[in-house]
Amino acid sequence: MRVLGVDPGIAIAGYGIVDYAGNSFSPVDYGCIRSGAGMLPHLRLSKLFSELTNLIVKYRPQCLAVEELFFNRNVRTAMSVSQARGVILLAAALEDLAVYEYTPLQVKQAVVGRGRADKQQVQYMIRIILNLPAIPKPDDVADALAVAVCHINNYSNIVIK
Amino acid sequence: MRVLGVDPGIAIAGYGIVDYAGNSFSPVDYGCIRSGAGMLPHLRLSKLFSELTNLIVKYRPQCLAVEELFFNRNVRTAMSVSQARGVILLAAALEDLAVYEYTPLQVKQAVVGRGRADKQQVQYMIRIILNLPAIPKPDDVADALAVAVCHINNYSNIVIK
Repeated sequence: MRVLGVDPGIAIAGYGIVDYAGNSFSPVDYGCIRSGAGMLPHLRLSKLFSELTNLIVKYRPQCLAVEELFFNRNVRTAMSVSQARGVILLAAALEDLAVYEYTPLQVKQAVVGRGRADKQQVQYMIRIILNLPAIPKPDDVADALAVAVCHINNYSNIVIK
Repeated sequence: MRVLGVDPGIAIAGYGIVDYAGNSFSPVDYGCIRSGAGMLPHLRLSKLFSELTNLIVKYRPQCLAVEELFFNRNVRTAMSVSQARGVILLAAALEDLAVYEYTPLQVKQAVVGRGRADKQQVQYMIRIILNLPAIPKPDDVADALAVAVCHINNYSNIVIK
């Protein structure tokens, strides 16, 4: 089972591709897609779309896992991230990937075992679960890997210990 | 000069293609792209993307004109509309269209001559300017035609009387 996790964003979108087989996780590739603030919005979206599509074509994950967005404060940021999220969902749809959405609570519960875990705990557990040499940076990459692990956990009914 | 105006939305996205030549406007095509609430979000975005791309390929407008979104109340709605808006901007980018964004104030000023005009006045003026047999329905279609007319007005420095 191969899952693509994405943490949506326009300046930085994190991605993480994770395999799960024989009761173990292995990271296939992870990193982030960036675009500069000097670019026009539609061209930033186009860069995100084409680089994400390239990753899907290269690694052929079966599905996309992505967090549901919750924003209470900055509506402007929410709208900008949502535009990026729309393009990410579209890339998945056009490559026939199934799409699974998880709340931040579900991701924390799956990775750390409790919904009120903080960011550092999630990052630490991602490093352990995926046997990474260090915590992936920036945070967006760890978040993308976390939602991929969350989906595998949910889908395969395993309990991560 | 041929302009595609779009009013973003996930359930209904309005579109209007308007030609401007020899000091007169003519509507080329207008309508809306719909998707049912029963469809998965990424498939709704995919339907919007492919139908809008088909319109761009069919009519070859030089540019896309779209309103900037302003939301104060419902963040959930703002995020859903923004996902659709991201896909609309992407469709324009992939077909090499220039993209122009206008505030609701600019659209009203261009179409009615004052920024505090109400929806009915904008719709009435769109019918007059484009010489339409009736006010286009639903509202999303009139809004899409209005932002197209706004762009033509801004771009050609004409004053609509």
